[in-house]
Amino acid sequence: MLIKNAADFDQKEVCIYGRVLNVRELGGLTFVLIQDFTGQIQAVFERKVDIKNNEAIKVKGIIRKDKRAKGGYEIFVNDFEVISKSKELPFDLGKNELNLQLNTLLDHRTISLRHPKIQAIFKLYDILLESYETVMREEGFTEVKTPKLLETASEGGANFFKVDYFDKKAFLAQSPQLYKQIMVGVFERVFEIGPVFRAEPHFTTRHINEYISLDAEMGFINSYKDVIETLSSVIRKMIKIINEKGKDYLKIYNANPVEVPQTIPNIKLAEAKEKINKKYGYSVPKDTDIDPEGERLISKFVKEEFGSDFVFVTHYPWEHRPFYTMPDKENPGETFGFDLLFRGVELVTGSQRIHLYDELIDNMNKKGVKPRGLEFYLETFKYGMPPHGGWAIGSERFIQLILGLKNVKEAALFPRDVKRLSP
Amino acid sequence: MLIKNAADFDQKEVCIYGRVLNVRELGGLTFVLIQDFTGQIQAVFERKVDIKNNEAIKVKGIIRKDKRAKGGYEIFVNDFEVISKSKELPFDLGKNELNLQLNTLLDHRTISLRHPKIQAIFKLYDILLESYETVMREEGFTEVKTPKLLETASEGGANFFKVDYFDKKAFLAQSPQLYKQIMVGVFERVFEIGPVFRAEPHFTTRHINEYISLDAEMGFINSYKDVIETLSSVIRKMIKIINEKGKDYLKIYNANPVEVPQTIPNIKLAEAKEKINKKYGYSVPKDTDIDPEGERLISKFVKEEFGSDFVFVTHYPWEHRPFYTMPDKENPGETFGFDLLFRGVELVTGSQRIHLYDELIDNMNKKGVKPRGLEFYLETFKYGMPPHGGWAIGSERFIQLILGLKNVKEAALFPRDVKRLSP
Repeated sequence: MLIKNAADFDQKEVCIYGRVLNVRELGGLTFVLIQDFTGQIQAVFERKVDIKNNEAIKVKGIIRKDKRAKGGYEIFVNDFEVISKSKELPFDLGKNELNLQLNTLLDHRTISLRHPKIQAIFKLYDILLESYETVMREEGFTEVKTPKLLETASEGGANFFKVDYFDKKAFLAQSPQLYKQIMVGVFERVFEIGPVFRAEPHFTTRHINEYISLDAEMGFINSYKDVIETLSSVIRKMIKIINEKGKDYLKIYNANPVEVPQTIPNIKLAEAKEKINKKYGYSVPKDTDIDPEGERLISKFVKEEFGSDFVFVTHYPWEHRPFYTMPDKENPGETFGFDLLFRGVELVTGSQRIHLYDELIDNMNKKGVKPRGLEFYLETFKYGMPPHGGWAIGSERFIQLILGLKNVKEAALFPRDVKRLSP
Repeated sequence: MLIKNAADFDQKEVCIYGRVLNVRELGGLTFVLIQDFTGQIQAVFERKVDIKNNEAIKVKGIIRKDKRAKGGYEIFVNDFEVISKSKELPFDLGKNELNLQLNTLLDHRTISLRHPKIQAIFKLYDILLESYETVMREEGFTEVKTPKLLETASEGGANFFKVDYFDKKAFLAQSPQLYKQIMVGVFERVFEIGPVFRAEPHFTTRHINEYISLDAEMGFINSYKDVIETLSSVIRKMIKIINEKGKDYLKIYNANPVEVPQTIPNIKLAEAKEKINKKYGYSVPKDTDIDPEGERLISKFVKEEFGSDFVFVTHYPWEHRPFYTMPDKENPGETFGFDLLFRGVELVTGSQRIHLYDELIDNMNKKGVKPRGLEFYLETFKYGMPPHGGWAIGSERFIQLILGLKNVKEAALFPRDVKRLSP
């Protein structure tokens, strides 16, 4: 019997297979919390039993209704078998909180993931993926899978990992940027869920070197505002699904359901900088467009003024945005590039892109980006590319911010950083 | 107006944005077939117009019902604008068939993908992904994303791509095998859709060096037969969705809807070899478990005897299966490893895995696999791993076989082979 079906088997004898989450002895009875892939149930033994936390077991017994029990049913066990034993764990998975240092948590990742509170993170992650898959299809986007092995480090950035590819060198994709733009020429609206690889030597609480990016690109827009509007709708629908399907997991973290305002506030970056300078006396360092502290304060400002956890910051400066970003012709120092901040952190980066060949070449020249290795991409723009734009959502960061986790590494099953390639 | 909504705008003036798929002049009229992300519609101009195939255009006109038209409606154009021009194409996208050599098709991939017949492949691919995502959730599997950068070439095989990872070497994952097994200890049932990387120098019609694998792993099985049963159910449900949602795309390739028999036939590999030897006089070469010609003939045999396009071939020899495959204790030369062949080609590989630590170590010793770099994986088996098994479906190959494409590269957007890293 699957645990979710307990109600159908009231007073009947059944077999349950599952993992032991908790063992408690009380007044001659033993209570064993069992989990299978459909839910949890308490098994009651009328004696002491040799069952340890974390073991894989089979129990045979009678299902009985009990209001006090999780899920409303218990199983009174007549017989059981330990299918697969567990040796002593390096920490107690039966406690409500693991309270481990991040390094210990990650060193023992294969076991720490089994703790119900850690499981909750990745159950919510599953819902996040499902919500993106569902909502993007509703919005008319076609799911694509583009290559992660590239001939050239083609976005003009540094921080690419190099690969030995037979007798050549290849590079790992930092994003599906060029390919998703090409696909706008095919399907007009595309989305991709896939890994991206960043050879950035950071040690921060919000970066990992391999992560899952939720990408999208859409054609026939009038301006970057259409991208923002579609993205807002996508985020709103995703959050609705996450709040509903994920409510038990949010509760475990004392996290409130996320609220998305009817219209997400937007503010130009230059203006936002003035506001936080005026209100909080903070000046963003000169060599950057915006720093993490600046993002935090913009979010704080918008939360205080408009009550929103989300804010679009638009018109990022030309010098800080990649060559494919559409410049604002009326103010060429700025672009139609934007970020969506959520609770103080950059969650999404997006922009309108340049869609005309001559303008693209011109912008590359100004930026000093060489066309070598980009020929296949540039060629596309000679053949009727419509105005388009898109975005990339950091999936692990989204979960981190929803649950209020301290470090994004907690939201990746097996995170990669400069020092960590295993487990 | 989106093209799919034409019926709601009968006799009304609307604007349509889209790509030109075809231009025909006839008796003073010009007929332009336009595609947006929701469908296709014919635009009628009462004169010659300067619109070329492949351009991005905006048309303004009156929607009129016409039984002869695709979708039942046409638009009679009053005004139009070419939003983005196209230069002369290297081939005619307006023809029903492109008839290009594979290399030409792939060299000009960014443009050839726009041909409706090529689009159909990737629309069907989108449906394939959707079907897996949907069906796996229905079956109680949790979607996971496991790392593609690994510390060790850990499955004991060769053919790993090496990566410069800061001051170390890393390897690109050949499969999520070890991680999905670990995740059985967490969620009991998991699935993953992600890229895998194979540094195999093949030049065949059924291999690419980067592809999308549809993986799954499930716990608390009684034997490999439970894996086969669940996989059969998954394939059946996927095919139902693909046949229904994809019927227009199948038609473009004159492909019949796929039929999955109520029970997919299964046969032991050794027995299958005898059958094809007896019936077709074919002997599988000695140094392999089975070769492509052998697979083709097993499928032929099963099609002739049982009328099925699918067949499970089971009990692959111990020496040809990886160290984590469960040996058949009654016949230790064989394992509980299987393949699912579809129309003559291996579509899925799967097996029951070893779940007890001592047996795993023993099998590794016999195979000469060193535990170095596998410690995190092995450790998991000390902590109550249930009996489990799983599979990996080659997604591009599935589409290739459904549509009857000659080469699997036709089913990958931007395929990678020994010589091809771009576009």
